[in-house]
Amino acid sequence: MLGVNRFLLKLSGKIVDPENAELVKKYAVVINRLVDEGYRVAIIVGGGTYARNYISCARVLGLSNAQADMVGIEVARVNALLFAYAIGERAYVPIPRSIEEVERAWSTGKVVVAGGLQPGQSTAAVAAIVAETLGIRRILYATDVDGVYDKDPKMFSNAKKFERISVDELARVLSQRFEAGGYQLLDPIAMQVVKRSCIDVVIFNGFHVENVEKAAKGEAIGTLVVPCS
Amino acid sequence: MLGVNRFLLKLSGKIVDPENAELVKKYAVVINRLVDEGYRVAIIVGGGTYARNYISCARVLGLSNAQADMVGIEVARVNALLFAYAIGERAYVPIPRSIEEVERAWSTGKVVVAGGLQPGQSTAAVAAIVAETLGIRRILYATDVDGVYDKDPKMFSNAKKFERISVDELARVLSQRFEAGGYQLLDPIAMQVVKRSCIDVVIFNGFHVENVEKAAKGEAIGTLVVPCS
Amino acid sequence: MLGVNRFLLKLSGKIVDPENAELVKKYAVVINRLVDEGYRVAIIVGGGTYARNYISCARVLGLSNAQADMVGIEVARVNALLFAYAIGERAYVPIPRSIEEVERAWSTGKVVVAGGLQPGQSTAAVAAIVAETLGIRRILYATDVDGVYDKDPKMFSNAKKFERISVDELARVLSQRFEAGGYQLLDPIAMQVVKRSCIDVVIFNGFHVENVEKAAKGEAIGTLVVPCS
Amino acid sequence: MLGVNRFLLKLSGKIVDPENAELVKKYAVVINRLVDEGYRVAIIVGGGTYARNYISCARVLGLSNAQADMVGIEVARVNALLFAYAIGERAYVPIPRSIEEVERAWSTGKVVVAGGLQPGQSTAAVAAIVAETLGIRRILYATDVDGVYDKDPKMFSNAKKFERISVDELARVLSQRFEAGGYQLLDPIAMQVVKRSCIDVVIFNGFHVENVEKAAKGEAIGTLVVPCS
Amino acid sequence: MLGVNRFLLKLSGKIVDPENAELVKKYAVVINRLVDEGYRVAIIVGGGTYARNYISCARVLGLSNAQADMVGIEVARVNALLFAYAIGERAYVPIPRSIEEVERAWSTGKVVVAGGLQPGQSTAAVAAIVAETLGIRRILYATDVDGVYDKDPKMFSNAKKFERISVDELARVLSQRFEAGGYQLLDPIAMQVVKRSCIDVVIFNGFHVENVEKAAKGEAIGTLVVPCS
Amino acid sequence: MLGVNRFLLKLSGKIVDPENAELVKKYAVVINRLVDEGYRVAIIVGGGTYARNYISCARVLGLSNAQADMVGIEVARVNALLFAYAIGERAYVPIPRSIEEVERAWSTGKVVVAGGLQPGQSTAAVAAIVAETLGIRRILYATDVDGVYDKDPKMFSNAKKFERISVDELARVLSQRFEAGGYQLLDPIAMQVVKRSCIDVVIFNGFHVENVEKAAKGEAIGTLVVPCS
Repeated sequence: MLGVNRFLLKLSGKIVDPENAELVKKYAVVINRLVDEGYRVAIIVGGGTYARNYISCARVLGLSNAQADMVGIEVARVNALLFAYAIGERAYVPIPRSIEEVERAWSTGKVVVAGGLQPGQSTAAVAAIVAETLGIRRILYATDVDGVYDKDPKMFSNAKKFERISVDELARVLSQRFEAGGYQLLDPIAMQVVKRSCIDVVIFNGFHVENVEKAAKGEAIGTLVVPCS
Repeated sequence: MLGVNRFLLKLSGKIVDPENAELVKKYAVVINRLVDEGYRVAIIVGGGTYARNYISCARVLGLSNAQADMVGIEVARVNALLFAYAIGERAYVPIPRSIEEVERAWSTGKVVVAGGLQPGQSTAAVAAIVAETLGIRRILYATDVDGVYDKDPKMFSNAKKFERISVDELARVLSQRFEAGGYQLLDPIAMQVVKRSCIDVVIFNGFHVENVEKAAKGEAIGTLVVPCS
Repeated sequence: MLGVNRFLLKLSGKIVDPENAELVKKYAVVINRLVDEGYRVAIIVGGGTYARNYISCARVLGLSNAQADMVGIEVARVNALLFAYAIGERAYVPIPRSIEEVERAWSTGKVVVAGGLQPGQSTAAVAAIVAETLGIRRILYATDVDGVYDKDPKMFSNAKKFERISVDELARVLSQRFEAGGYQLLDPIAMQVVKRSCIDVVIFNGFHVENVEKAAKGEAIGTLVVPCS
Repeated sequence: MLGVNRFLLKLSGKIVDPENAELVKKYAVVINRLVDEGYRVAIIVGGGTYARNYISCARVLGLSNAQADMVGIEVARVNALLFAYAIGERAYVPIPRSIEEVERAWSTGKVVVAGGLQPGQSTAAVAAIVAETLGIRRILYATDVDGVYDKDPKMFSNAKKFERISVDELARVLSQRFEAGGYQLLDPIAMQVVKRSCIDVVIFNGFHVENVEKAAKGEAIGTLVVPCS
Repeated sequence: MLGVNRFLLKLSGKIVDPENAELVKKYAVVINRLVDEGYRVAIIVGGGTYARNYISCARVLGLSNAQADMVGIEVARVNALLFAYAIGERAYVPIPRSIEEVERAWSTGKVVVAGGLQPGQSTAAVAAIVAETLGIRRILYATDVDGVYDKDPKMFSNAKKFERISVDELARVLSQRFEAGGYQLLDPIAMQVVKRSCIDVVIFNGFHVENVEKAAKGEAIGTLVVPCS
Repeated sequence: MLGVNRFLLKLSGKIVDPENAELVKKYAVVINRLVDEGYRVAIIVGGGTYARNYISCARVLGLSNAQADMVGIEVARVNALLFAYAIGERAYVPIPRSIEEVERAWSTGKVVVAGGLQPGQSTAAVAAIVAETLGIRRILYATDVDGVYDKDPKMFSNAKKFERISVDELARVLSQRFEAGGYQLLDPIAMQVVKRSCIDVVIFNGFHVENVEKAAKGEAIGTLVVPCS
């Protein structure tokens, strides 16, 4: 059935980082294994530290926000290329640069790895739009926290992790905890897209690579964000 | 100085519609005159009635929301091509299909006309992102109302039009009046982009073509949405 | 053997029309079934009513004939995208925009759906050129009549349908019945291409979707135009 | 005014041939001079002897007619590149490969040089379609004869050259003299396009390079084919 | 294992030449057979006699060296297209024009045929770079000599063919025998790339088509150039 | 005259580095001033520290040399984009990714900024090939040394800087001083191209931005490498 064995992996640029070669290698092994087991996979990679450095430089140079975003997107694409090469023959290259190229790449049956697509969007928004375009119903969201908590777990020892949370509840929780940071996990476009197309999002700690396999296979891990109940 | 004589015109698909040939013709004349007077112009065109019909059909066919959006975007691009040809030699063809192609088209010095770029975005969001990318500080937003009112002017005879309104105030006014329709004029991406880059938005009735020239030349017309005060 | 189980379906824009969602859906089901049965399929879709409306508008705007054609081609491409999405994963997207892109799409093994390619050509000519390029020997020509008649069947109750007709005979019959309309079915390029490459053309009523399967499987249906005897 | 100082030069591959370096050089000088005098110029180049050799080889290899045409088109593009480089900075490179790329190239204001675009078309048809697309009203058709004669001037010493001839009359004259060769000068697409858009065609001997300047400047030279009277 | 059953065939333009239709046909048969036996194949084709004629013409026209190279590359691409069509459905078209397009073509699983990529490179360099990019460890180098000799076999009857030679030794032998010609077989880029990535090169007489199959299957034929020992 | 007021600036990735925002800004100012004074400028930017980090990571991941190069080239392109945006409206975006796109960008009259083009080439080789393609006769080679010395100036206080040196002499000097490093400044392709097309190379310290203007205007600065005497 459409979508049951396909997922989109959103990988933070903190994970696919040239200084994390060993972790990247492990991810490549896992993706290859999952493909061999019959999964179809799309991957969206963020820009990470280097992207942030370029964006800081862009500010000093007086570039527009869109231009700063574009430079950051290019760095995410470098990370995507690095990871596609690490995966090897099962991955499509070159890295798609527009939603149409994502569709073309997907037509070949390969693993599709992309970075950003457009200024003014978070990587999470790209992940949601690409998932929706390719008929993928599940986003595996690999980040640097174990899931979504009711309070900041770094500050409150009694913070409680949600096993399962609705998108609206997630929006409420996040908006309470930070001002601008409410969108750190899912920005408004990402939320709107996962809601309108009922795309589940599993948020988990991506620094433990075995979590990806667990999440892919439906084991309870991190926090499951449920857009439609 | 950068941006003083450049603007982005956002044209509803209700205006650039194959059934409005005479209006389209007048717009083409006005754009040509403004270019001759030294303005640099980018134009984003919506999909209009035909786009809506395709999207309805897409729903019946069971296409995903992203696919329905993509079909609508293609119709907006047909409208963009029609209008670019109507403008003639001063306009760039073919119609750009990604933000990079928008940049390439802009590099030639021509008037750049585009439709949508990506699923999950309103035409207003496209207008904001393109304006930001090209360093344009003013969006002329031609629509089918005379501006922003404190109440629905069709229902309340004492509805008062704002001469000038902040983006946050606009968000508040719109969210009070409709549920889903709060984003009819500016969706969250559009608002976020115009705010972060201080892009003024003039909302006016585009069925009176002389309004475009007035808005371009800074005459008070419709409602001026001020993102940064 | 090359070509025995492959065909090109030429679909009038009157059939793939956003207002015919149910018919489009049935076509998508049939194409999927034929692909599963081992057929390789290319599809050329026309522009239909919307294309004609844009072309009328183009005339009012004073666009050149080539520009009017280009706008019509874009509408045919929207129809092609709609239909490719309706077919789903077995169809290639994005829609090819040149003969080279048709070849690239075909290289992936997917169903290839295209609209027009160039000004100055009918959809039938596109169908013939694409069939020839891809080594396809049979065009299934779905239109709104039951086949080719010796007289206009709407005017003459004794009009006789041809089971089989040569291209030259077809040209003669059509030229007798209309002035300009002689090319309604096959224009000179289409005729020349099917003749030089011996491509059979089955002309049948496409509003009965079961006719496509019959025509694909070689059952006698409509009129068979035989270019080489 | 639109089109008054613009023309399309159709150059036989017998003229732009690597074995005619000196003639190609002279053409490049003339084109540069005409551009300096204010003409806007598009040029369509044929494939010549090498194209014919590739096409013969394609036949032996059992390629389809469309594939043979495609190989010939590629040779025409090599000739176009050679000539564009010979013209130098005033010419656009790379050589456009589709009608959209022709439009993009034209947008830069440069001289646009192209070879063929699609199987199943003569170079004359390409010339007509490109002229129509770019709003050019005059084709300078440089070939190896001095114009159109009422009889074959190589066989009849009393053959009379037409100063001026209608497209329909031309079709009639040519069809009397050769079977297949009736289309040697203008094939049906070319005729249809020049007629529907009233594009004049001046047919002259291109081996005398001064003829191009004369034809560009409206001097009577060769035969003027008048599509609309 | 990666690379064991894949090879890159470098074919001189003297072999894939429109005047050698029968030889080209035989090559197409062999490539199809090897693909059926499980080999993955990339092919780089040279420009041959026609390329040289265009380059001579480019010199007369005063084009730059890079422009002359570009014209020659285009001819190599025509040869590549001819050969890809001769191979048929197992080959990818259109011909890739950059290293990224080579990667995209390879992603489809088809035989990839290319001509040159960039000015300033021999076809051998292109072969080495493409092999390295695609993870191919063996170049089959079809040329017009039987292998590498210690002296010119046309001049010295006692010239001895090397069965096996290191890249450095090859460089030394060649530099002794010719001045400029030292790079006729492998230019510095080609040597550097095969050395750094340990790509074996088998140099053999390509006018005997059975040699390709022997070389593909690891039989001793011609001279084996060993980059890493 | 062709080439007299045009130059190619080769900028080390150590200079256009996100951590050197102020220096990048100064360079942008200088380029704008030189364009205003009538210079036509192409710029090739290297990958710098980030590229090296990615390449190290690529090695750990077991990527091929070509893949490592490709990732490095992408970083160079990010730097190119950053710098093109810094220059602003006078620079062409998007960044060209092949020699054909370089030509297309150059056709618009804008400053063209590019990173690498292909695996197996140094940035210096790219600079030489692009200069040759665009008819540029002078490369301004901004690096981190003051010019070419007869000995390593860091080790020998009596090292003497060459004012002027031939390419062959440069090759000899460099090969004496380092093993692998002989190609640090100009690799064999770069040397071969500048020699065959007589392209002067001025090697100077790019950390003093005023040196670029001096070099552009022909003042004696650094070391002038003379390919043809």
